[in-house]
Amino acid sequence: MPRSAHETRQKILREAHRLFRKSGFFRAGIDEIAAASRVTKRTLYHHFESKDALLAAVLSAQHAEVFASLDPYGVRLSGTPAQIVEALFDKLVEWSTTPHWAGSGFTRLAMELADLPGHPARTIAHQHKAAMEQYLTGVLATAGLEQPAERARELFVLIEGAMALILVHGDPAYAGAAANAARCLFDPARAAAEPTPRMAAPA
Amino acid sequence: MPRSAHETRQKILREAHRLFRKSGFFRAGIDEIAAASRVTKRTLYHHFESKDALLAAVLSAQHAEVFASLDPYGVRLSGTPAQIVEALFDKLVEWSTTPHWAGSGFTRLAMELADLPGHPARTIAHQHKAAMEQYLTGVLATAGLEQPAERARELFVLIEGAMALILVHGDPAYAGAAANAARCLFDPARAAAEPTPRMAAPA
Repeated sequence: MPRSAHETRQKILREAHRLFRKSGFFRAGIDEIAAASRVTKRTLYHHFESKDALLAAVLSAQHAEVFASLDPYGVRLSGTPAQIVEALFDKLVEWSTTPHWAGSGFTRLAMELADLPGHPARTIAHQHKAAMEQYLTGVLATAGLEQPAERARELFVLIEGAMALILVHGDPAYAGAAANAARCLFDPARAAAEPTPRMAAPA
Repeated sequence: MPRSAHETRQKILREAHRLFRKSGFFRAGIDEIAAASRVTKRTLYHHFESKDALLAAVLSAQHAEVFASLDPYGVRLSGTPAQIVEALFDKLVEWSTTPHWAGSGFTRLAMELADLPGHPARTIAHQHKAAMEQYLTGVLATAGLEQPAERARELFVLIEGAMALILVHGDPAYAGAAANAARCLFDPARAAAEPTPRMAAPA
């Protein structure tokens, strides 16, 4: 049964997303994406005028999908600030230990296109990360944390740093280090008052 | 005047480093590197058996150069923990605002080769980042900070996260957010006791 134009477009987006995530933007070829989508290159270029445009469309679709969900971080973020930190970093450990995990696609793209600040995909990566940080600000405000925007930014820096170093070292312990730091940032008085060292050594 | 084999090798390493940093590993071509080094491809392959081997040699040379210096972070790290944090993040702001700044080459490489955990360049990136973290541990121990290994790891997560987000957003303010977080982590009692909010909004 022939696919509708919409179905074809969605299939190309899915396969391109899978292959860009697997091999990065430059190694994933248009021929490979067309073959995986079971369309001709002509059809692919009918839907997306260039590989750059296809990448931008993939990231836009990914961004829209993340924010269509109730939980953009893949986990319910509610309760106390401490519970939010546990949920976030537990999720990061779970995610980063899935087979062939390769970090944040948006961050990888920004690094792969580091010399191309004006690339449309860079613009979408910027918007996506800003929206993720903004979402955390709302979560922390709801949890009653003071200066939620400042704390959200620090938390987001810790998440990004943990993702980079989990990938570099293949070691999810960096999520634990980042979680310990976040706990201290959210409640320095409690961290300072603990009679025992405030954090265990990372596993 | 003909170059010695050593000079030729060094020239290839320098040009490969420049081009890998500019365009990433996959976009920088062997033809381009050979032309920039003013050698034939045959000569290049005489010195480096493959592009993968050349990349590994570039990163090894870079790692050796960083650790041959007295200050692997490019700035003297001494004094109090607070002074160390200022020096580190001032340096990050200075570095990240140079034209065409593209983040940490080792992190970018790990992300570009995210699907190739066994690649020799990934091994060197892992060793380099571990050595940088270890160096910070020594600096913080000398500064008298308790649990220097744990604090160094948290600081390193903040530096990596700041680098990623400065690149994503083109905004060095992420270094300021990371610096504020590091100050709190190093001295939670003081952070908790401040009558005014412990950190200004990032510039």
